[in-house]
Amino acid sequence: MKKFEIRLAGTGGQGVILASVILAEAAGVYEGWYAVQTQSYGPEARGGASRADVILADGPILYPKCRKLDLLVGLSQQAIDKYLPDLKHRGLAIIDEFYVRECPHPQTVCLPLSRTAREKLGRELFTNILTLGAIAKITGLVSLESLKKAVSSRVPKQYLDLNTRALEAGWELGAGVKSNPFSA
Amino acid sequence: MKKFEIRLAGTGGQGVILASVILAEAAGVYEGWYAVQTQSYGPEARGGASRADVILADGPILYPKCRKLDLLVGLSQQAIDKYLPDLKHRGLAIIDEFYVRECPHPQTVCLPLSRTAREKLGRELFTNILTLGAIAKITGLVSLESLKKAVSSRVPKQYLDLNTRALEAGWELGAGVKSNPFSA
Repeated sequence: MKKFEIRLAGTGGQGVILASVILAEAAGVYEGWYAVQTQSYGPEARGGASRADVILADGPILYPKCRKLDLLVGLSQQAIDKYLPDLKHRGLAIIDEFYVRECPHPQTVCLPLSRTAREKLGRELFTNILTLGAIAKITGLVSLESLKKAVSSRVPKQYLDLNTRALEAGWELGAGVKSNPFSA
Repeated sequence: MKKFEIRLAGTGGQGVILASVILAEAAGVYEGWYAVQTQSYGPEARGGASRADVILADGPILYPKCRKLDLLVGLSQQAIDKYLPDLKHRGLAIIDEFYVRECPHPQTVCLPLSRTAREKLGRELFTNILTLGAIAKITGLVSLESLKKAVSSRVPKQYLDLNTRALEAGWELGAGVKSNPFSA
């Protein structure tokens, strides 16, 4: 069975839950994956780092908790410090170049996610949706079209255009990444 | 270990995922529960009924999938038809009186959720958040205050006042419910 365990992590307010819901919906509703999307709260979840998990598989997902991540997306240093041990050695880390200084992992893609959101969309708020575009392009797990459909049902209508442009800007960033474990 | 398995179910567009995220955050971040919030997508999830699950416990949640529900909230007939078999015999069903005609379960609370949203808030769109207020009052699992905090980080600022009023309107509806398994 093909199975991918994905974690989006950052600080509260960076919108990793919304982004994960959209990713799971794009994959599960529009591309036929089995998908489970989860967030957990508990003493270990308090204190800054916020995370949301997505598991995609080509068959039923019996155990819906991430064990070893194939992909960790880190939008803050604290998130990387906390969750990097959960990433497979052959997995991929995608990090924001502004908020993450250090990510000691052999396969790390460092992208100007928040900077591009600021520069191209005027607000860092769009970093989470922009990041989805990059994930899609780098991993090939979902199409840009499916993400656009999922976004349209999850964001307020007046921001749909900006969010769509955020997806496209992220996709472009992803297109600049030469090699990664998913394409290998 | 105390553990409560909760499912919010309706049709796409009724906002059960957002409501579940808010419920889990209220319980997990502001009230010290261990909480897991999940949505699943797969062939069985297609075709109308939309659902989101929340598990609350007073200790770590090792298996994060709902097995037998303590509480099923149904905002559509299709959702009730599909998920009622998952509700414990001694569990509680809360249903919308407008959208659910039939709910053959011994402990069913029927409330004018969508109607109250229309009448008091001007839009049915607020039914999901209003429902959270009713759940809180009926079950005692989270306080109105914690829900307000969680809502404030999850809805656009310009709608915060309406959403807060939705929570309060739901709480009032819940206050009219005389007996339920949670208070017994």
